[in-house]
Amino acid sequence: MKKSLFYTLLIIFIAFSGCNTQPTSQHPKYVFLFIGDGMGLNQVQISELYLAAIADKYEPEDLSFSNFPIQSYQTTYSVNSLITCSSAAVTALATGYKTNNGVLGKDTSLTINYETIAEKAKKAGYKIGVLSSVAIDHATPAGFYAHQNYRGMYYEISTELPKSEFDYFGGGAFHYPTGKDLTKANAYELAESMGYTITDTQEEFFNIKQGDEKVLAFNPELYPDGEFYWEIDKKPGSISLADFTEKGIEVLENEKGFFMMVEGGKIDWACHSNDAVTMIHETLAFSDAVAEAIEFYQEHPNETLILVTADHETGGIVLGNGASPKLGVLENQKISGQEFIRKLTNLKNENKNVSFKQVMDSVSKDFGLGKSELGLSLTKEEKEFLYEGYQVTFSNNLKGEADKDYLSEKEGNSFAERVVYLLNEKAGISWSSYNHSATSVPIYAIGAGQEQFKTKIDNTDIPKIIAELMGL
Amino acid sequence: MKKSLFYTLLIIFIAFSGCNTQPTSQHPKYVFLFIGDGMGLNQVQISELYLAAIADKYEPEDLSFSNFPIQSYQTTYSVNSLITCSSAAVTALATGYKTNNGVLGKDTSLTINYETIAEKAKKAGYKIGVLSSVAIDHATPAGFYAHQNYRGMYYEISTELPKSEFDYFGGGAFHYPTGKDLTKANAYELAESMGYTITDTQEEFFNIKQGDEKVLAFNPELYPDGEFYWEIDKKPGSISLADFTEKGIEVLENEKGFFMMVEGGKIDWACHSNDAVTMIHETLAFSDAVAEAIEFYQEHPNETLILVTADHETGGIVLGNGASPKLGVLENQKISGQEFIRKLTNLKNENKNVSFKQVMDSVSKDFGLGKSELGLSLTKEEKEFLYEGYQVTFSNNLKGEADKDYLSEKEGNSFAERVVYLLNEKAGISWSSYNHSATSVPIYAIGAGQEQFKTKIDNTDIPKIIAELMGL
Repeated sequence: MKKSLFYTLLIIFIAFSGCNTQPTSQHPKYVFLFIGDGMGLNQVQISELYLAAIADKYEPEDLSFSNFPIQSYQTTYSVNSLITCSSAAVTALATGYKTNNGVLGKDTSLTINYETIAEKAKKAGYKIGVLSSVAIDHATPAGFYAHQNYRGMYYEISTELPKSEFDYFGGGAFHYPTGKDLTKANAYELAESMGYTITDTQEEFFNIKQGDEKVLAFNPELYPDGEFYWEIDKKPGSISLADFTEKGIEVLENEKGFFMMVEGGKIDWACHSNDAVTMIHETLAFSDAVAEAIEFYQEHPNETLILVTADHETGGIVLGNGASPKLGVLENQKISGQEFIRKLTNLKNENKNVSFKQVMDSVSKDFGLGKSELGLSLTKEEKEFLYEGYQVTFSNNLKGEADKDYLSEKEGNSFAERVVYLLNEKAGISWSSYNHSATSVPIYAIGAGQEQFKTKIDNTDIPKIIAELMGL
Repeated sequence: MKKSLFYTLLIIFIAFSGCNTQPTSQHPKYVFLFIGDGMGLNQVQISELYLAAIADKYEPEDLSFSNFPIQSYQTTYSVNSLITCSSAAVTALATGYKTNNGVLGKDTSLTINYETIAEKAKKAGYKIGVLSSVAIDHATPAGFYAHQNYRGMYYEISTELPKSEFDYFGGGAFHYPTGKDLTKANAYELAESMGYTITDTQEEFFNIKQGDEKVLAFNPELYPDGEFYWEIDKKPGSISLADFTEKGIEVLENEKGFFMMVEGGKIDWACHSNDAVTMIHETLAFSDAVAEAIEFYQEHPNETLILVTADHETGGIVLGNGASPKLGVLENQKISGQEFIRKLTNLKNENKNVSFKQVMDSVSKDFGLGKSELGLSLTKEEKEFLYEGYQVTFSNNLKGEADKDYLSEKEGNSFAERVVYLLNEKAGISWSSYNHSATSVPIYAIGAGQEQFKTKIDNTDIPKIIAELMGL
């Protein structure tokens, strides 16, 4: 069955089972907080419309959470900026307090550690899960268990993780397990010494079972900095965010209940690159993870609350750049912009004199650009635009494109950035910057207590409402 | 009392009077539908943050509807485009049917006239009001009483108006009362012959009283095409959209009830010009009109429904262009971009050799640009950017800037456009285009039946829900 049809039927089933608009209980035993990092309303909408376009349909195709019975939004500003960063945002989402950009789980004077909703729930006897598709010590997951003056203190954060005694961590690995200088006591060994079981193979992962405690489950396939491969470039041996979520439900289910935070961390990263196709694939993987929670919700409709939201919007993406949208052309992009940089870097390393024709062949193959039969002809000006980027990237006088998280390292000038920019432009997509925006972000809610989310709230309200609903 | 404080207290009062979250009735007798043309969530948010910035505050200042107890959003696509125009959008909002862009109140084959919610309500005995700050035969107001193959058939639309027998029309005048060719029977005389009283002075307007029937009330101060002056350039003798709304309530109040549509039509126009300050002033005037309905709601909380929404988003505005937002600098813009064009045109008409220094003095006075004490210094590149625009606008070899609705006639090249662009950029604002976007638009709801709007719906759902609530 097609996924979108499945979701629609699922929501219809839920509606007819009488549980969607007014669940009988206001006190959820099982709480899911899904955070799509950087996922604004337009990221969701463009993903829905992309699915429609590639299915030759017109009306938006649903993501798993597109028809949740409550949908509103939240403001995201931090103490020192109208445009928050992920650490100030997660501090608000996890603790109910705003702080300065860069700070994690502390006040602006850096003297108070704010208790997180996960820490409170743990104390009250709930089991706790924290999942992410980026490094588990990255700002958003860390915001639920760590307190540091600066989000970049990855090693210090990784040593805080086992002290939380949370039951299940899943997804990305540690960023700097022995510190940036590689001299510190190994954070994995520290976690093990504190009772954590670490899994980093598929076999070990699928052997984790209900009731297992203190599990630290990593994806076997990760980039060196600890995050998942881009969904669009996924390796065969990967474990998906949906798998981690499904396993989390299995591990954490118990009589008292659980709180599980699941972050789709690379939606933001794709938006920092202004790479719409890669963003869409990350959003769809995130949607699949939410679908696991919806299945659980079906079995426990009166005891479960699912919230899907974001920490902030990234990139200011808009469908509408003055031309008619043609989202179907996006299907021609076969790899992420970042993976394309890797290909270019390899080409360059193999051969000092990479020709423009050589790289344009790759552009045609991986992005469809230049193929008139796909509606992706290039004008003379567009070819010149790409040639300028080729010169920036392949000139021997300039540094090559580094293997960076984002494409935007060259501020729009490099070859890969220009290729991605052109495809986005031809689809009708505009981006406002390579950074976060002040735009409010959506909240989707279903289940016990959902009615608390039917109007605009502030990000700090979310943990306060959850705490009240859970009786913390 | 400060307006924002007033709104906050008002909402708190409403909350404590027990009427906001679950009004006892689901059947409103009085229905207000406010349409901010082109008003997306970011237009509202930037207006809120502008008010905060000029009050030296940090947290967003409320508009009249910022704290409505229900806030969600609607999808806006038309039959033939993911990006709707105002006529296809109003057809959806007024009739519950999608159609092609350009069509007004008819199906895509142009053979069926769809009945509007206002026509249905009229038949059922409700009194009807239709108000707009642009010409009363413009797409959005026309969509509630007219049915034409093409929205641009202004004369034909103006002759449909009196046939509706609606009780109160207010705001802008007719676009072409004697047709584009000035040869047709006068549409005002036609309306009078069909029993309408026309008012076009303040005195006549304020003499309109409860129970008056078939009133066609125009603002005494209008541009030649029938629309209000920009709020930021408002003339002393004007009647505001809030005044027209207040008067509408007085005229229409009756035992059976009423349906009133109020359009803030020039929010869209300011966005077509990518002129944030002018957009903000239009949004604030729209908010003031909503405030009149809120006052009425306070007196009739169980019988009133207020909906505030938009037909589409225009311009893809985003707060976040890579730099830190500085919305306070927008306060230095004293006139609309369009009024600035008028000034430039006058300068040019008076003097063939207008110097760059002369126009830059005007830029400094009307926009603050170039004043370092306001944080608005211009770099060498920015001065060159303006000088290029000066050459486009003042070269004797090129046509001057026409007196157009929008600034975008020169696609970003003219002097006035560049001035407005620079101020917006310095504030941290980005625009994606001079046209509409596909972005979903907000719905704010308060009152009887509000619960029907707590999740994402389609624009076609709105009149269906209203019809059901009103028992039509």
